[in-house]
Amino acid sequence: MKIVAAKKILKANDQLAAENRSLFDRAGVFAVNILGSPGCGKTTLIEAMIQAVRARVPTAVIEGDLAGTVDAERLAAQQVPVLQINTEGACHLDANMIAAAVRELPLDGVSLLLIENVGNLVCTAGFNLGEHLRIVLLSVPEGDDKLVKYPTIFQTAEAVIVTKYDLAPHFDFRLERVRDDLRRLGNDGPVFPISAKTGQGLGELLRWFAGRLPDRE
Amino acid sequence: MKIVAAKKILKANDQLAAENRSLFDRAGVFAVNILGSPGCGKTTLIEAMIQAVRARVPTAVIEGDLAGTVDAERLAAQQVPVLQINTEGACHLDANMIAAAVRELPLDGVSLLLIENVGNLVCTAGFNLGEHLRIVLLSVPEGDDKLVKYPTIFQTAEAVIVTKYDLAPHFDFRLERVRDDLRRLGNDGPVFPISAKTGQGLGELLRWFAGRLPDRE
Repeated sequence: MKIVAAKKILKANDQLAAENRSLFDRAGVFAVNILGSPGCGKTTLIEAMIQAVRARVPTAVIEGDLAGTVDAERLAAQQVPVLQINTEGACHLDANMIAAAVRELPLDGVSLLLIENVGNLVCTAGFNLGEHLRIVLLSVPEGDDKLVKYPTIFQTAEAVIVTKYDLAPHFDFRLERVRDDLRRLGNDGPVFPISAKTGQGLGELLRWFAGRLPDRE
Repeated sequence: MKIVAAKKILKANDQLAAENRSLFDRAGVFAVNILGSPGCGKTTLIEAMIQAVRARVPTAVIEGDLAGTVDAERLAAQQVPVLQINTEGACHLDANMIAAAVRELPLDGVSLLLIENVGNLVCTAGFNLGEHLRIVLLSVPEGDDKLVKYPTIFQTAEAVIVTKYDLAPHFDFRLERVRDDLRRLGNDGPVFPISAKTGQGLGELLRWFAGRLPDRE
Protein backbone atom coordinates (compact mmCIF):
# COMPACT_ATOMS: atom_id res chain seq x y z
CA MET A 1 0.00 0.00 0.00
CA LYS A 2 1.30 3.42 -0.95
CA ILE A 3 0.98 6.10 1.68
CA VAL A 4 1.50 9.76 0.88
CA ALA A 5 0.74 12.71 3.14
CA ALA A 6 -1.16 15.72 1.82
CA LYS A 7 1.55 18.11 3.06
CA LYS A 8 4.23 16.16 1.21
CA ILE A 9 2.16 16.18 -1.99
CA LEU A 10 1.74 19.96 -1.83
CA LYS A 11 5.46 20.46 -1.14
CA ALA A 12 6.41 18.21 -4.05
CA ASN A 13 3.88 20.07 -6.20
CA ASP A 14 5.42 23.44 -5.32
CA GLN A 15 8.86 22.18 -6.35
CA LEU A 16 7.56 20.84 -9.67
CA ALA A 17 5.66 24.08 -10.21
CA ALA A 18 8.91 26.03 -9.79
CA GLU A 19 10.54 23.76 -12.40
CA ASN A 20 7.62 24.35 -14.79
CA ARG A 21 7.96 28.09 -14.23
CA SER A 22 11.69 27.99 -15.09
CA LEU A 23 10.95 25.96 -18.19
CA PHE A 24 8.26 28.44 -19.27
CA ASP A 25 10.62 31.40 -18.65
CA ARG A 26 13.49 29.83 -20.63
CA ALA A 27 11.06 29.09 -23.50
CA GLY A 28 9.60 32.61 -23.43
CA VAL A 29 6.14 31.25 -22.64
CA PHE A 30 3.63 33.17 -20.51
CA ALA A 31 1.39 30.63 -18.74
CA VAL A 32 -2.12 31.34 -17.48
CA ASN A 33 -4.07 29.09 -15.08
CA ILE A 34 -7.80 29.53 -15.73
CA LEU A 35 -10.09 28.47 -12.89
CA GLY A 36 -13.83 28.31 -12.32
CA SER A 37 -16.90 26.12 -11.77
CA PRO A 38 -18.13 23.60 -14.33
CA GLY A 39 -19.80 25.49 -17.16
CA CYS A 40 -18.75 28.97 -16.04
CA GLY A 41 -17.37 29.82 -19.48
CA LYS A 42 -13.67 28.94 -19.31
CA THR A 43 -13.49 27.48 -22.83
CA THR A 44 -15.47 30.37 -24.30
CA LEU A 45 -13.08 32.87 -22.70
CA ILE A 46 -10.10 30.92 -24.05
CA GLU A 47 -11.62 31.12 -27.55
CA ALA A 48 -11.97 34.90 -27.16
CA MET A 49 -8.41 35.24 -25.86
CA ILE A 50 -6.99 33.21 -28.76
CA GLN A 51 -8.88 35.32 -31.29
CA ALA A 52 -7.85 38.60 -29.62
CA VAL A 53 -4.10 37.89 -29.64
CA ARG A 54 -3.93 35.61 -32.67
CA ALA A 55 -2.11 38.06 -34.94
CA ARG A 56 0.81 38.67 -32.60
CA VAL A 57 0.95 36.04 -29.86
CA PRO A 58 1.28 32.35 -30.87
CA THR A 59 -0.84 30.46 -28.37
CA ALA A 60 -1.21 26.86 -27.17
CA VAL A 61 -3.80 25.37 -24.85
CA ILE A 62 -3.81 22.63 -22.22
CA GLU A 63 -7.30 21.31 -21.40
CA GLY A 64 -7.94 19.64 -18.04
CA ASP A 65 -10.96 17.37 -17.62
CA LEU A 66 -11.73 14.25 -15.62
CA ALA A 67 -12.64 12.50 -18.85
CA GLY A 68 -13.46 13.17 -22.48
CA THR A 69 -12.13 15.56 -25.10
CA VAL A 70 -15.12 17.87 -25.58
CA ASP A 71 -13.23 21.12 -25.00
CA ALA A 72 -10.04 20.04 -26.76
CA GLU A 73 -12.07 19.24 -29.88
CA ARG A 74 -13.80 22.61 -29.62
CA LEU A 75 -10.50 24.48 -29.30
CA ALA A 76 -8.79 22.54 -32.08
CA ALA A 77 -11.16 24.45 -34.37
CA GLN A 78 -9.20 27.57 -33.36
CA GLN A 79 -6.18 26.04 -35.10
CA VAL A 80 -3.86 26.29 -32.15
CA PRO A 81 -1.98 23.38 -30.57
CA VAL A 82 -4.23 21.78 -27.93
CA LEU A 83 -3.37 19.04 -25.48
CA GLN A 84 -6.03 17.29 -23.40
CA ILE A 85 -5.19 16.03 -19.92
CA ASN A 86 -7.66 13.48 -18.56
CA THR A 87 -7.24 13.49 -14.81
CA GLU A 88 -9.18 10.21 -14.49
CA GLY A 89 -11.09 11.32 -11.46
CA ALA A 90 -8.66 13.83 -9.97
CA CYS A 91 -10.39 17.07 -9.10
CA HIS A 92 -7.65 19.46 -10.22
CA LEU A 93 -4.57 19.73 -12.42
CA ASP A 94 -1.21 19.60 -10.68
CA ALA A 95 2.32 20.64 -11.63
CA ASN A 96 3.32 17.08 -12.50
CA MET A 97 0.48 16.76 -15.03
CA ILE A 98 1.56 20.04 -16.61
CA ALA A 99 5.20 18.91 -16.77
CA ALA A 100 4.09 15.73 -18.55
CA ALA A 101 1.79 17.67 -20.89
CA VAL A 102 4.53 20.10 -21.85
CA ARG A 103 6.73 17.20 -22.92
CA GLU A 104 3.97 16.25 -25.40
CA LEU A 105 3.15 19.79 -26.50
CA PRO A 106 6.28 21.39 -27.99
CA LEU A 107 6.51 25.04 -26.97
CA ASP A 108 8.78 26.13 -29.85
CA GLY A 109 7.42 29.42 -31.14
CA VAL A 110 4.62 29.48 -28.53
CA SER A 111 4.44 32.67 -26.43
CA LEU A 112 1.22 32.10 -24.54
CA LEU A 113 0.02 28.92 -22.83
CA LEU A 114 -3.59 28.94 -21.66
CA ILE A 115 -4.33 26.19 -19.14
CA GLU A 116 -7.99 25.35 -18.53
CA ASN A 117 -8.21 23.65 -15.17
CA VAL A 118 -10.88 21.14 -14.06
CA GLY A 119 -14.21 22.84 -13.28
CA ASN A 120 -13.92 23.18 -9.51
CA LEU A 121 -13.96 26.15 -7.11
CA VAL A 122 -12.20 24.27 -4.33
CA CYS A 123 -9.40 21.84 -5.10
CA THR A 124 -7.82 23.70 -8.01
CA ALA A 125 -7.00 26.62 -5.68
CA GLY A 126 -4.35 24.66 -3.75
CA PHE A 127 -2.16 23.59 -6.64
CA ASN A 128 0.35 25.92 -8.27
CA LEU A 129 1.06 24.79 -11.84
CA GLY A 130 4.00 27.16 -12.39
CA GLU A 131 1.74 29.74 -14.01
CA HIS A 132 2.57 33.45 -14.33
CA LEU A 133 -1.04 34.50 -13.99
CA ARG A 134 -4.04 32.92 -12.28
CA ILE A 135 -7.55 34.10 -13.04
CA VAL A 136 -10.87 32.84 -11.72
CA LEU A 137 -14.20 33.00 -13.52
CA LEU A 138 -17.54 33.41 -11.78
CA SER A 139 -20.62 33.16 -13.97
CA VAL A 140 -23.69 35.27 -13.21
CA PRO A 141 -26.01 32.20 -12.92
CA GLU A 142 -23.83 30.88 -10.06
CA GLY A 143 -24.82 33.89 -7.96
CA ASP A 144 -23.01 36.79 -6.33
CA ASP A 145 -22.51 35.00 -2.99
CA LYS A 146 -19.75 32.63 -4.07
CA LEU A 147 -16.75 34.53 -2.66
CA VAL A 148 -18.07 34.00 0.85
CA LYS A 149 -18.55 30.27 0.23
CA TYR A 150 -15.32 29.56 -1.68
CA PRO A 151 -12.87 32.12 -0.30
CA THR A 152 -9.50 30.49 -1.07
CA ILE A 153 -9.80 30.46 -4.84
CA PHE A 154 -10.84 34.11 -4.91
CA GLN A 155 -8.01 35.04 -2.55
CA THR A 156 -5.36 33.46 -4.77
CA ALA A 157 -6.49 34.75 -8.19
CA GLU A 158 -5.09 37.92 -9.76
CA ALA A 159 -8.40 38.88 -11.37
CA VAL A 160 -12.05 37.83 -11.17
CA ILE A 161 -13.90 37.56 -14.49
CA VAL A 162 -17.68 37.73 -14.07
CA THR A 163 -18.99 35.84 -17.12
CA LYS A 164 -22.44 35.69 -18.77
CA TYR A 165 -22.96 39.24 -17.54
CA ASP A 166 -25.76 39.78 -20.06
CA LEU A 167 -27.83 37.58 -17.70
CA ALA A 168 -27.29 39.87 -14.68
CA PRO A 169 -30.84 41.36 -14.83
CA HIS A 170 -32.36 37.84 -14.70
CA PHE A 171 -30.38 36.84 -11.63
CA ASP A 172 -30.37 39.89 -9.34
CA PHE A 173 -26.58 39.67 -9.51
CA ARG A 174 -24.78 42.52 -7.71
CA LEU A 175 -21.31 43.22 -9.09
CA GLU A 176 -20.71 45.51 -6.11
CA ARG A 177 -21.13 42.57 -3.78
CA VAL A 178 -18.43 40.65 -5.65
CA ARG A 179 -16.07 43.65 -5.45
CA ASP A 180 -16.80 44.21 -1.76
CA ASP A 181 -16.36 40.54 -0.88
CA LEU A 182 -13.09 40.40 -2.87
CA ARG A 183 -11.69 43.39 -0.94
CA ARG A 184 -12.84 41.76 2.28
CA LEU A 185 -10.75 38.70 1.31
CA GLY A 186 -7.73 41.03 1.03
CA ASN A 187 -7.58 40.86 -2.77
CA ASP A 188 -7.20 44.21 -4.56
CA GLY A 189 -7.38 42.65 -8.04
CA PRO A 190 -9.71 43.83 -10.79
CA VAL A 191 -13.21 42.45 -11.40
CA PHE A 192 -14.19 42.27 -15.08
CA PRO A 193 -17.86 41.77 -15.99
CA ILE A 194 -18.01 40.28 -19.49
CA SER A 195 -20.47 38.70 -21.88
CA ALA A 196 -19.14 36.50 -24.66
CA LYS A 197 -22.63 36.70 -26.20
CA THR A 198 -22.88 40.51 -26.45
CA GLY A 199 -19.15 41.29 -26.33
CA GLN A 200 -19.68 43.55 -23.32
CA GLY A 201 -16.50 44.07 -21.26
CA LEU A 202 -14.37 41.76 -23.41
CA GLY A 203 -12.31 44.66 -24.81
CA GLU A 204 -11.40 45.96 -21.37
CA LEU A 205 -10.49 42.48 -20.10
CA LEU A 206 -8.39 41.67 -23.14
CA ARG A 207 -6.56 45.02 -22.92
CA TRP A 208 -5.75 44.26 -19.27
CA PHE A 209 -4.66 40.77 -20.26
CA ALA A 210 -2.46 42.09 -23.10
CA GLY A 211 -0.87 44.47 -20.62
CA ARG A 212 0.08 41.51 -18.42
CA LEU A 213 1.92 39.76 -21.28
CA PRO A 214 5.65 40.42 -21.40
CA ASP A 215 6.91 42.86 -24.04
CA ARG A 216 8.43 41.12 -27.04
CA GLU A 217 10.94 42.39 -29.54
CA MET B 1 3.39 14.35 10.93
CA LYS B 2 0.13 12.51 10.38
CA ILE B 3 -0.02 10.20 7.39
CA VAL B 4 -3.28 8.79 6.13
CA ALA B 5 -3.84 6.91 2.89
CA ALA B 6 -6.73 7.84 0.62
CA LYS B 7 -7.95 4.22 0.48
CA LYS B 8 -8.03 4.02 4.26
CA ILE B 9 -9.97 7.28 4.45
CA LEU B 10 -12.60 5.99 2.01
CA LYS B 11 -12.89 2.69 3.88
CA ALA B 12 -13.29 4.49 7.19
CA ASN B 13 -15.83 6.78 5.53
CA ASP B 14 -17.88 3.81 4.30
CA GLN B 15 -17.99 2.36 7.79
CA LEU B 16 -19.10 5.67 9.30
CA ALA B 17 -21.66 6.07 6.51
CA ALA B 18 -23.15 2.67 7.41
CA GLU B 19 -23.40 3.80 11.04
CA ASN B 20 -25.13 7.03 9.95
CA ARG B 21 -27.53 4.98 7.87
CA SER B 22 -28.42 2.75 10.84
CA LEU B 23 -28.94 5.81 13.01
CA PHE B 24 -31.21 7.37 10.37
CA ASP B 25 -33.20 4.15 10.01
CA ARG B 26 -33.66 3.77 13.76
CA ALA B 27 -34.80 7.40 13.99
CA GLY B 28 -37.18 7.02 11.04
CA VAL B 29 -35.31 9.69 9.08
CA PHE B 30 -35.00 9.59 5.27
CA ALA B 31 -31.71 11.28 4.30
CA VAL B 32 -31.05 12.89 0.93
CA ASN B 33 -27.58 13.89 -0.33
CA ILE B 34 -27.94 16.82 -2.75
CA LEU B 35 -25.02 17.36 -5.12
CA GLY B 36 -24.14 19.86 -7.83
CA SER B 37 -21.84 22.67 -8.93
CA PRO B 38 -21.59 25.99 -7.12
CA GLY B 39 -24.70 28.03 -7.86
CA CYS B 40 -26.61 25.25 -9.63
CA GLY B 41 -29.68 25.80 -7.47
CA LYS B 42 -29.30 23.35 -4.58
CA THR B 43 -30.60 25.74 -1.92
CA THR B 44 -33.51 26.84 -4.10
CA LEU B 45 -34.52 23.20 -4.67
CA ILE B 46 -34.31 22.54 -0.94
CA GLU B 47 -36.63 25.50 -0.31
CA ALA B 48 -39.12 24.05 -2.82
CA MET B 49 -38.87 20.57 -1.26
CA ILE B 50 -39.48 21.92 2.23
CA GLN B 51 -42.52 23.88 1.07
CA ALA B 52 -43.92 20.90 -0.86
CA VAL B 53 -43.80 18.45 2.04
CA ARG B 54 -44.19 20.88 4.94
CA ALA B 55 -47.70 19.83 5.95
CA ARG B 56 -46.89 16.13 6.37
CA VAL B 57 -43.10 15.59 6.54
CA PRO B 58 -41.14 17.36 9.30
CA THR B 59 -37.84 18.29 7.69
CA ALA B 60 -34.36 19.33 8.82
CA VAL B 61 -31.42 20.54 6.76
CA ILE B 62 -27.65 20.20 6.94
CA GLU B 63 -25.76 22.82 4.93
CA GLY B 64 -22.22 22.13 3.75
CA ASP B 65 -19.96 25.02 2.77
CA LEU B 66 -16.25 25.73 2.98
CA ALA B 67 -17.02 28.88 4.94
CA GLY B 68 -19.86 31.20 5.83
CA THR B 69 -23.51 30.73 6.70
CA VAL B 70 -25.22 32.27 3.65
CA ASP B 71 -27.42 29.26 2.85
CA ALA B 72 -28.15 28.32 6.45
CA GLU B 73 -29.44 31.84 7.08
CA ARG B 74 -31.55 31.62 3.94
CA LEU B 75 -33.05 28.28 4.96
CA ALA B 76 -33.66 29.33 8.55
CA ALA B 77 -36.36 31.57 7.05
CA GLN B 78 -38.17 28.32 6.15
CA GLN B 79 -38.55 27.70 9.90
CA VAL B 80 -37.00 24.25 9.83
CA PRO B 81 -34.00 23.15 11.93
CA VAL B 82 -30.82 23.98 9.96
CA LEU B 83 -27.25 23.09 10.84
CA GLN B 84 -24.31 24.60 8.99
CA ILE B 85 -21.13 22.57 8.51
CA ASN B 86 -18.08 24.65 7.57
CA THR B 87 -15.61 22.26 5.99
CA GLU B 88 -12.78 24.83 6.36
CA GLY B 89 -11.35 24.12 2.96
CA ALA B 90 -12.46 20.53 2.44
CA CYS B 91 -14.10 20.05 -0.94
CA HIS B 92 -16.87 17.68 0.14
CA LEU B 93 -18.87 16.53 3.15
CA ASP B 94 -17.96 13.16 4.62
CA ALA B 95 -19.73 10.67 6.86
CA ASN B 96 -17.81 11.82 9.93
CA MET B 97 -18.97 15.43 9.47
CA ILE B 98 -22.56 14.20 9.16
CA ALA B 99 -22.21 12.06 12.30
CA ALA B 100 -20.95 15.12 14.20
CA ALA B 101 -23.71 17.31 12.74
CA VAL B 102 -26.44 14.86 13.73
CA ARG B 103 -25.23 14.98 17.33
CA GLU B 104 -25.93 18.75 17.25
CA LEU B 105 -29.18 18.56 15.29
CA PRO B 106 -31.68 16.45 17.24
CA LEU B 107 -33.69 14.26 14.88
CA ASP B 108 -36.66 13.75 17.23
CA GLY B 109 -39.79 14.15 15.17
CA VAL B 110 -37.81 14.74 11.96
CA SER B 111 -38.72 12.45 9.03
CA LEU B 112 -36.69 14.01 6.24
CA LEU B 113 -33.07 15.21 6.35
CA LEU B 114 -31.94 17.22 3.33
CA ILE B 115 -28.14 17.47 3.11
CA GLU B 116 -26.74 20.16 0.81
CA ASN B 117 -23.21 19.15 -0.08
CA VAL B 118 -20.35 21.50 -1.02
CA GLY B 119 -20.71 22.83 -4.58
CA ASN B 120 -18.47 20.43 -6.46
CA LEU B 121 -19.05 17.94 -9.31
CA VAL B 122 -15.97 15.86 -8.48
CA CYS B 123 -15.01 15.21 -4.88
CA THR B 124 -18.50 14.92 -3.41
CA ALA B 125 -19.16 11.87 -5.60
CA GLY B 126 -16.69 9.64 -3.74
CA PHE B 127 -18.09 10.04 -0.24
CA ASN B 128 -21.15 8.16 0.98
CA LEU B 129 -22.78 10.06 3.85
CA GLY B 130 -25.19 7.27 4.79
CA GLU B 131 -27.95 8.78 2.67
CA HIS B 132 -30.97 6.88 1.33
CA LEU B 133 -31.14 8.93 -1.83
CA ARG B 134 -28.52 10.81 -3.82
CA ILE B 135 -29.53 13.35 -6.44
CA VAL B 136 -27.35 15.55 -8.63
CA LEU B 137 -28.34 18.93 -10.05
CA LEU B 138 -27.13 20.27 -13.39
CA SER B 139 -28.09 23.84 -14.23
CA VAL B 140 -28.80 24.82 -17.82
CA PRO B 141 -26.13 27.58 -17.83
CA GLU B 142 -23.46 24.94 -17.07
CA GLY B 143 -24.16 23.33 -20.43
CA ASP B 144 -25.39 19.93 -21.62
CA ASP B 145 -21.88 18.44 -21.95
CA LYS B 146 -21.17 17.97 -18.26
CA LEU B 147 -21.93 14.24 -18.02
CA VAL B 148 -19.03 13.49 -20.34
CA LYS B 149 -16.67 15.66 -18.31
CA TYR B 150 -17.76 14.61 -14.81
CA PRO B 151 -18.97 11.03 -15.26
CA THR B 152 -18.64 9.63 -11.72
CA ILE B 153 -21.11 11.93 -10.02
CA PHE B 154 -23.73 11.28 -12.70
CA GLN B 155 -23.14 7.53 -12.48
CA THR B 156 -23.74 7.44 -8.74
CA ALA B 157 -26.85 9.62 -8.51
CA GLU B 158 -30.37 8.21 -8.53
CA ALA B 159 -31.81 11.14 -10.49
CA VAL B 160 -30.53 14.14 -12.43
CA ILE B 161 -32.37 17.42 -11.88
CA VAL B 162 -31.82 19.92 -14.71
CA THR B 163 -32.34 23.29 -13.03
CA LYS B 164 -32.97 26.80 -14.44
CA TYR B 165 -34.70 25.09 -17.36
CA ASP B 166 -36.51 28.33 -18.26
CA LEU B 167 -33.09 29.42 -19.62
CA ALA B 168 -32.80 26.47 -22.03
CA PRO B 169 -33.62 28.56 -25.15
CA HIS B 170 -30.80 31.01 -24.29
CA PHE B 171 -28.21 28.25 -23.96
CA ASP B 172 -28.90 25.79 -26.76
CA PHE B 173 -29.27 23.17 -24.01
CA ARG B 174 -30.34 19.74 -25.26
CA LEU B 175 -32.14 17.65 -22.66
CA GLU B 176 -31.88 14.66 -24.98
CA ARG B 177 -28.11 14.85 -24.83
CA VAL B 178 -28.24 14.68 -21.02
CA ARG B 179 -30.57 11.65 -21.19
CA ASP B 180 -28.41 9.93 -23.80
CA ASP B 181 -25.17 10.57 -21.92
CA LEU B 182 -26.75 9.32 -18.69
CA ARG B 183 -27.80 6.05 -20.35
CA ARG B 184 -24.31 5.76 -21.83
CA LEU B 185 -22.94 5.98 -18.28
CA GLY B 186 -25.15 3.00 -17.40
CA ASN B 187 -27.58 5.01 -15.31
CA ASP B 188 -31.30 4.41 -15.99
CA GLY B 189 -32.46 7.07 -13.53
CA PRO B 190 -34.93 9.82 -14.37
CA VAL B 191 -33.96 13.28 -15.64
CA PHE B 192 -36.20 16.09 -14.37
CA PRO B 193 -36.08 19.48 -16.08
CA ILE B 194 -37.30 22.13 -13.64
CA SER B 195 -37.49 25.87 -13.23
CA ALA B 196 -37.88 27.29 -9.75
CA LYS B 197 -38.69 30.61 -11.41
CA THR B 198 -41.64 29.43 -13.56
CA GLY B 199 -42.52 26.31 -11.55
CA GLN B 200 -42.11 24.14 -14.65
CA GLY B 201 -41.43 20.48 -13.83
CA LEU B 202 -41.41 21.01 -10.07
CA GLY B 203 -44.68 19.11 -9.59
CA GLU B 204 -43.43 16.04 -11.41
CA LEU B 205 -40.11 16.06 -9.53
CA LEU B 206 -41.77 16.50 -6.15
CA ARG B 207 -44.27 13.71 -6.87
CA TRP B 208 -41.35 11.41 -7.73
CA PHE B 209 -39.58 12.54 -4.59
CA ALA B 210 -42.68 11.97 -2.42
CA GLY B 211 -42.92 8.48 -3.91
CA ARG B 212 -39.39 7.76 -2.74
CA LEU B 213 -40.22 8.69 0.87
CA PRO B 214 -41.16 5.74 3.09
CA ASP B 215 -44.86 5.31 3.88
CA ARG B 216 -45.74 6.52 7.34
CA GLU B 217 -48.59 5.56 9.59
